[in-house]
Amino acid sequence: MAKIISGTEIGRAMRAEIAVEAAAFERESGVTPGLAVVLVGEDPASQVYVTMKGKACREIGFHSREIVLPADTVEDELLGVIDGLNADPEIHGMLVQLPLPRHIDSQKVIMRIDPMKDVDGFHPVNVGRLAAGDRDVLAPATPSGIIQMLLRSGYDPKGKRVVVVGRSNIVGKPVALLLLRDAPGGNATVTVAHSRTPDLGSVTRQAEILIAAAGKPQLITREMVSPGVVVIDVGTNRVEDPTRERGFRLVGDVDFAGVKEVAAAISPVPGGVGPMTITMLLANTLQAARQIDAAAAGASS
Amino acid sequence: MAKIISGTEIGRAMRAEIAVEAAAFERESGVTPGLAVVLVGEDPASQVYVTMKGKACREIGFHSREIVLPADTVEDELLGVIDGLNADPEIHGMLVQLPLPRHIDSQKVIMRIDPMKDVDGFHPVNVGRLAAGDRDVLAPATPSGIIQMLLRSGYDPKGKRVVVVGRSNIVGKPVALLLLRDAPGGNATVTVAHSRTPDLGSVTRQAEILIAAAGKPQLITREMVSPGVVVIDVGTNRVEDPTRERGFRLVGDVDFAGVKEVAAAISPVPGGVGPMTITMLLANTLQAARQIDAAAAGASS
Repeated sequence: MAKIISGTEIGRAMRAEIAVEAAAFERESGVTPGLAVVLVGEDPASQVYVTMKGKACREIGFHSREIVLPADTVEDELLGVIDGLNADPEIHGMLVQLPLPRHIDSQKVIMRIDPMKDVDGFHPVNVGRLAAGDRDVLAPATPSGIIQMLLRSGYDPKGKRVVVVGRSNIVGKPVALLLLRDAPGGNATVTVAHSRTPDLGSVTRQAEILIAAAGKPQLITREMVSPGVVVIDVGTNRVEDPTRERGFRLVGDVDFAGVKEVAAAISPVPGGVGPMTITMLLANTLQAARQIDAAAAGASS
Repeated sequence: MAKIISGTEIGRAMRAEIAVEAAAFERESGVTPGLAVVLVGEDPASQVYVTMKGKACREIGFHSREIVLPADTVEDELLGVIDGLNADPEIHGMLVQLPLPRHIDSQKVIMRIDPMKDVDGFHPVNVGRLAAGDRDVLAPATPSGIIQMLLRSGYDPKGKRVVVVGRSNIVGKPVALLLLRDAPGGNATVTVAHSRTPDLGSVTRQAEILIAAAGKPQLITREMVSPGVVVIDVGTNRVEDPTRERGFRLVGDVDFAGVKEVAAAISPVPGGVGPMTITMLLANTLQAARQIDAAAAGASS
């Protein structure tokens, strides 16, 4: 029976650590880390995320600013808001909640964010620095959260065969790049499989660590893993469930009930990777505040 | 006995095609593609490369500009030269020959090149776009050359198990990203192994296509590959050889004599990946000229 890798617990412990570190940083520098979240429109799921991010900030003593713009906001206005946040000394991290309304060019918006404040790690300069193995880059939150879950559960990827299922730009590829980096949490032998991989099971059975990020409900079954595997399930798929009040439940990319019988450890859905994403956003905001403070000190010396 | 994948022959055929395409583009647009190569100092190997690049340009009718600066050139002067080339309408691609003298910050220099003219594909914005799977990015020359060698020899990586040995920023990681892209030459299941991979042979034996880019002479032996593998050898290692006039010979990362007995196909060293790199620089210069021309047409319409 597998050990459960709880993102809820690891996230809570990390947020407590971040609060302590941020307080020490504030004593030294006089700087309170600040995160701005920009939402365009009224997508209910996005509203929930924005509220959660603001609450998480306040709980650990960060400045938080939530900017909600109407759905018909023109692109130039949004770019102006970003310019303002780029210039704002109280804000060290910002993110624009995706997806944006169709009339706005997401790529142009992401490109406008100062890479030093890009706590989502989606700016091409930061993606490029991550791909180049830079240890100081702001790395995307979900992939960084996966690495922390492994390290803090005692499963260092170093020297291990890791299989990532999924090649998305927000999870699959960046987590593969983190796993390849010559840095803590890296130095793994990494395979990326995806929808075009024939006989997926023959690949996943080679994994000592398996990261499922394909966005397909219960894609990974017991027959597709080897005994003793460590599994991180990144999937959050809605499947209809008339027994639930809201009419659906969330399931991962892994058949949890089957795989937990053979795995050494496994993360659940919900309560796995999800809570880590906001935690890593906070970690990135503190990192950005430190880097911006250090750059300012360097420029004035 | 393996088929030989000759970069010399594939490169020659591609350069003929590029010349035809460039002539057609010139008739339509009035634009002759131009490549500038900047060399700082007198490193003999770098001088040879610069001369080869200039010659290759002229052979296919491109403008070529070779700029050689003294070894004690200050950083600001080099940045000024790059600014000039960025603004020069006759130049569509440029590269600064690496390594640079120690008193110059290479990263700062690379960051100064207009990403649209960055035919080496080393600017973080281009690395980021490559990592994001962008089909229109200027991809680094050597990795692109490897993909072309596979496609033009009839070994499409799509759906294949590809193992890349080496995780460098100029070959290993970018070729892995090209192989993962949902684009021609991509859609492979990709494993990246490296110096921290235990039991490398157990990984390389799973390869249907093996790309050796570790920089270790004859690292890959016959026992480390499975029969029928297709091997691209990116290594160009100098090993002492008193029987040669210059005192050394070039060997790849693959034990060619042994591996060719079991492989379906293999690229030699020299005459393999080497000649493809300059070819892909020319292809990138034409692509950059087209993209700059299209952007100018878009801006003026």
